[in-house]
Amino acid sequence: MAIVLLMPPPAGITAKSWHLLAIFVGTIAGLIVQPLPGGAMVLLGVAALALTRVLTPQQALAGYGDPTVWLVLAAFFMSRGMLKTGLGRRIAFWFIRKLGHRSLGLGYSLAGTDLLLASFIPSNAARAGGIIFPIAKSLAEAYDSRPGESARRLGSFLMLFLYQTDVMACAMFITGQASNPLIARFAQAATGLEISYSRWLLGAIVPGLVAFAITPVLLYRLYPPEIRETPRAAEIAGEELGRMGPMTRGEKLMLATFALVASLWMTTALHGINYAVVALIGIAVLLLSGVLEWNDLTTERGAWDVFIWYGGLVRMAEALSETGITQRFAQSAGGITTGWPWWLALAVLLLVYFYAHYGFASITAHSTAMYTPFLLVILAAGAPAWLAVLILAYSSNLMAGVTHYGTTPGPIYFGAGYVPQTTWWRLGFIASTSNLVIWVTVGFIWWKVLGWW
Amino acid sequence: MAIVLLMPPPAGITAKSWHLLAIFVGTIAGLIVQPLPGGAMVLLGVAALALTRVLTPQQALAGYGDPTVWLVLAAFFMSRGMLKTGLGRRIAFWFIRKLGHRSLGLGYSLAGTDLLLASFIPSNAARAGGIIFPIAKSLAEAYDSRPGESARRLGSFLMLFLYQTDVMACAMFITGQASNPLIARFAQAATGLEISYSRWLLGAIVPGLVAFAITPVLLYRLYPPEIRETPRAAEIAGEELGRMGPMTRGEKLMLATFALVASLWMTTALHGINYAVVALIGIAVLLLSGVLEWNDLTTERGAWDVFIWYGGLVRMAEALSETGITQRFAQSAGGITTGWPWWLALAVLLLVYFYAHYGFASITAHSTAMYTPFLLVILAAGAPAWLAVLILAYSSNLMAGVTHYGTTPGPIYFGAGYVPQTTWWRLGFIASTSNLVIWVTVGFIWWKVLGWW
Repeated sequence: MAIVLLMPPPAGITAKSWHLLAIFVGTIAGLIVQPLPGGAMVLLGVAALALTRVLTPQQALAGYGDPTVWLVLAAFFMSRGMLKTGLGRRIAFWFIRKLGHRSLGLGYSLAGTDLLLASFIPSNAARAGGIIFPIAKSLAEAYDSRPGESARRLGSFLMLFLYQTDVMACAMFITGQASNPLIARFAQAATGLEISYSRWLLGAIVPGLVAFAITPVLLYRLYPPEIRETPRAAEIAGEELGRMGPMTRGEKLMLATFALVASLWMTTALHGINYAVVALIGIAVLLLSGVLEWNDLTTERGAWDVFIWYGGLVRMAEALSETGITQRFAQSAGGITTGWPWWLALAVLLLVYFYAHYGFASITAHSTAMYTPFLLVILAAGAPAWLAVLILAYSSNLMAGVTHYGTTPGPIYFGAGYVPQTTWWRLGFIASTSNLVIWVTVGFIWWKVLGWW
Repeated sequence: MAIVLLMPPPAGITAKSWHLLAIFVGTIAGLIVQPLPGGAMVLLGVAALALTRVLTPQQALAGYGDPTVWLVLAAFFMSRGMLKTGLGRRIAFWFIRKLGHRSLGLGYSLAGTDLLLASFIPSNAARAGGIIFPIAKSLAEAYDSRPGESARRLGSFLMLFLYQTDVMACAMFITGQASNPLIARFAQAATGLEISYSRWLLGAIVPGLVAFAITPVLLYRLYPPEIRETPRAAEIAGEELGRMGPMTRGEKLMLATFALVASLWMTTALHGINYAVVALIGIAVLLLSGVLEWNDLTTERGAWDVFIWYGGLVRMAEALSETGITQRFAQSAGGITTGWPWWLALAVLLLVYFYAHYGFASITAHSTAMYTPFLLVILAAGAPAWLAVLILAYSSNLMAGVTHYGTTPGPIYFGAGYVPQTTWWRLGFIASTSNLVIWVTVGFIWWKVLGWW
């Protein structure tokens, strides 16, 4: 931040815009180093913007009234309903009863639940951490697989498998994790291209499902559980479903809300109702029907945490895009790749972007810092815009698989203690690279078929 | 709401504006009847505004980026620091050690703490409920005064006394309770007059201190405790202070932040730093120094509750004032008081406004519903603008004394079980009326002295 402040602003950029950049850079540095939690760093950034009068208080705080931010907030509240009613658990047990007789099927049952919920719940902590993880852990324990000697019986496999499949689920939907709508905003600010809910999904569905079919099986081959047959898991699922009894009123209402919200999000082109408004309708249904109580919202601290960092970052990035600094950067960045064919520039920059995630503990920090500049350089080299926008967007999720701290559920699954770190990293590298290769190659073809480039 | 919708909009008012009014009226009705908690009702109102396209999603949500709303949110966070560090308790014990040798002095010690904190903490629940109440209760119990036979020894007096003095503390500062900045917004929207922090305080200081000197003594006379001498209370305070030891680093930082923020608020005219930005600076200091942790903010559910209803109401009221409906109402309302001198209109309407609080369980619901229309009618009768604006603003706090549910600490102090309801209401009526009379008469003179009318 100090470095930016000390450099003179380039010609055509006002001192105010330059200070804005300095505060933005300082905030991102804070997000990476985290002397305080991310939300606190962003709030300090917002305060600094207003105090230094780089923005008016109204401008600095405007992100907190932004519909994208409220979309995420409201969706976090809905995920509370999924947890509270137990519907998420029930869906997982349905899958397991059906497919969980073998350990690979068991893994896919839980991964499938995660994938289904990702269409709706942008909190991967709530999904993979809150719903899937406790089931996976208790099933591993049911097979007497615990950290230590018995880890490899079943638990090691499940933990590694489910973290990697969660990362894939994140990439499939714009609601896959909280940074995705933010990335869509960055893309729109830089190129004018709007990634809607349905476009994100349409672009992801073919490469995503191919990767979902290949990478997990690869993991199963490379790191198999000692127990291959898991009839007891399917039995347990049946018993749990028996114990849960028929669907409660709350679960039915939650399911109906889920269907309503997800279908409205997919059909925005038909009715034009803003995503955030759809999410608010979902909350209204849940509140009016008593599925969620008011306290559920005010005590949902994960939601408020995201709200604060999200609102601040959205606003800073938007303000920055209004300054002309990004355009300016794009012009000068063109020089870096002079003489390269665009595909080479895309390949090199994508690899750097992707594996730089070893240095980040959060998709948000990484994509906020690097998405826009990398996109601009790739575009300056002549790459087709949609191609560049989407590859970087999907990769921003897939890259989280490389480490055990790549995105929020990482510390949860790794922290269960079943998998040694070297194994986690080695297989994380293999799985992420497999995903990247599949998404890029299949994606290239699929988006060409769709006529997007 | 349905009634408003069925009535045709008056000439010159668009259908859209009329729908806005209908949703606003529906929201207020919801705040009064509370089929769901207030925050939920407001959130439903916001969703309805966006869904019916009366406002765009951006417009409907804009209140959540409003500096006034963030001022309140940030101040709620600061009050957490006051509780967490124990500074509030220490201040109370300082007062008690000094003044608490007699029961009246004891009451004033606690009331004085509340008054001091009101300069800074807009959550009367945190102040009177979180800091003062536990001390009052434990001191009553130290004198063996418990609900039932021994109630009148000390507890009954303290509970009644402290609730009434809290209501007075609320009226003294724009930060006295959360609705005050909202009322200032209503006043500005209706008249263009801006009630700053310092103007609110300057206008309140003389009538407020006179009332603070008279009404509590009146209560002491009418409802004396059996125990008049309370040397043990002063001793206990001394012991507690001994046990707390010297001020901790956290307390010192909290005190410094308190001094910094309150003095910046009072001197806005000199430096022009927005109130919300000052509050954010306070939060930044507390976060950076570790007095507050990030979790303290995200789990502060009272703050988030207020944030949601506040942001929604601020926006609705603002949007409504842009429609021309309020101006229209003011024109037609002029007819009601035709031929009355302005002081008669002011007196009659003020009395109706004030005692209508028997029907409300919240200052917010009451003032949101009635402040603007009553102000407009009074102004239409020719009353001086500042006079009308301030009397209604201060009264909006004082009126909360009439019942045991008038504002948030009511149920806490009444619910302690020391005072029967008939006594509470009888003395509540007397105290409120005493306050109203003092504020109006002394206020009239004081504001004339200040040249405000």
